[in-house]
Amino acid sequence: MNKEITSVQNPYIKELYLLKEKSRDRKKSGLFLIEGAREIELALKGNYQLETILYYPEIFSEAQVNSLKSAQTKIIQISKDVYQKLAHRDTTEGIIAVAKTKSHDLNNIKFKSENPLILVAEAPEKPGNIGAILRTADAANVDAVIIANPKTDLYNPNIIRSSVGCIFTNQIATGSTSEIISFLKGENIAIYCAALQTSELYTTQDFTKATAIVMGTEATGLSAEWLEQSTQNIVIPMQGEIDSMNVSVAAGILIFEAKRQRNFK
Amino acid sequence: MNKEITSVQNPYIKELYLLKEKSRDRKKSGLFLIEGAREIELALKGNYQLETILYYPEIFSEAQVNSLKSAQTKIIQISKDVYQKLAHRDTTEGIIAVAKTKSHDLNNIKFKSENPLILVAEAPEKPGNIGAILRTADAANVDAVIIANPKTDLYNPNIIRSSVGCIFTNQIATGSTSEIISFLKGENIAIYCAALQTSELYTTQDFTKATAIVMGTEATGLSAEWLEQSTQNIVIPMQGEIDSMNVSVAAGILIFEAKRQRNFK
Repeated sequence: MNKEITSVQNPYIKELYLLKEKSRDRKKSGLFLIEGAREIELALKGNYQLETILYYPEIFSEAQVNSLKSAQTKIIQISKDVYQKLAHRDTTEGIIAVAKTKSHDLNNIKFKSENPLILVAEAPEKPGNIGAILRTADAANVDAVIIANPKTDLYNPNIIRSSVGCIFTNQIATGSTSEIISFLKGENIAIYCAALQTSELYTTQDFTKATAIVMGTEATGLSAEWLEQSTQNIVIPMQGEIDSMNVSVAAGILIFEAKRQRNFK
Repeated sequence: MNKEITSVQNPYIKELYLLKEKSRDRKKSGLFLIEGAREIELALKGNYQLETILYYPEIFSEAQVNSLKSAQTKIIQISKDVYQKLAHRDTTEGIIAVAKTKSHDLNNIKFKSENPLILVAEAPEKPGNIGAILRTADAANVDAVIIANPKTDLYNPNIIRSSVGCIFTNQIATGSTSEIISFLKGENIAIYCAALQTSELYTTQDFTKATAIVMGTEATGLSAEWLEQSTQNIVIPMQGEIDSMNVSVAAGILIFEAKRQRNFK
């Protein structure tokens, strides 16, 4: 018989609520919440460990829960009230997992290919843009996504949601700009920085060798350190009235130009 | 001496508030609000007529206002309270214009080039995605953006905001899917529909001739009518765990592949 929690005043539920709301609590505990069966499946594929699964039996069956759990996963039935307290979305999925965060150490990156393709984003802010970038990185099957000087923790519910689970399917590392530049140079990976100034047309560069595409923020672009240390700064021509695109769109255009040059291999 | 309004109870201010809040009121009056000097400048470049400019003199000077107004524009000073009632954003711009909506008739489209490049989006929903698509269309200087079966009116403050004014810099038409297909066929414009099924790799197609790139919704893709009437369905390869990208990212990748083939001319 599975455990059942029906009170929103339950101390464990209060702890989980803080995991949803507070970056600090996620960092301290090394735990975070994943909502929705699809996202939980992707987390399992990405080798995330699920400590607990909570489900609301009127929406989600015990059999479905059992198909998602591993040996060490605890299962808890919850009431509608408890579900609603922990859920982030309006749509009702009926299932929430408590998962262990992963290390995002640069040195843990395992390249999938001899000439890796890497997407770097410096200090991205909007969860919607981070999510869209992670979806593009998944579609392109890049070797890794690296976040420089992260502004938010990756396990923010808005990022998980807008990435539709691609936070779990990508190999993700974080570090300071200096650390990442050293890492890329040490691995002989060419650094292409998206920039409007002193840059070459992106389609004229050879992205078939080991390549990192580096994106700045929409507001301020890349920091001077990146622009000075880059192999080449590259630009997408802007032929309209404004001189900026959405950062996740620009990342998609550059990454898929690299994919085209590599014959989508 | 300019007119001054200091009461949020003023009947004209109440009317303007409804223009901000209600699509129905925008449609009925043919008027909408534009917030921010940058956006107002882009609207003027796009030949939008400004009926009235309201400004809060502690933030925005009368001289600045005069640089934006045309002969027939009325100028009204407003108090902080009135400004805050009409403003949509958190950031304080201090200036709001009342502008006339434009007709978005397909037959008004004026092609800029002999082999036009057109971006079509069917029933896009999220203002963030519509805004990002309009920014991409501006950057690529496409001939026109066509919205099929629109779900929202274009003058929704969230769309204006997320397009950073590119709602004004693009030539935009709307129509039903049938009307748009007839229009494109009548103009001998090839129709390339983004679709996962029975489609060819997007980089293998010739986008240098007159081309429309057609995007569906993230949830359901394109309607059967588009897929049946297309010149060719095209696909961006998905090599990860999920089978969808952000729609504005996918649009950017396809439009800029066409731009690359056209040597960015």
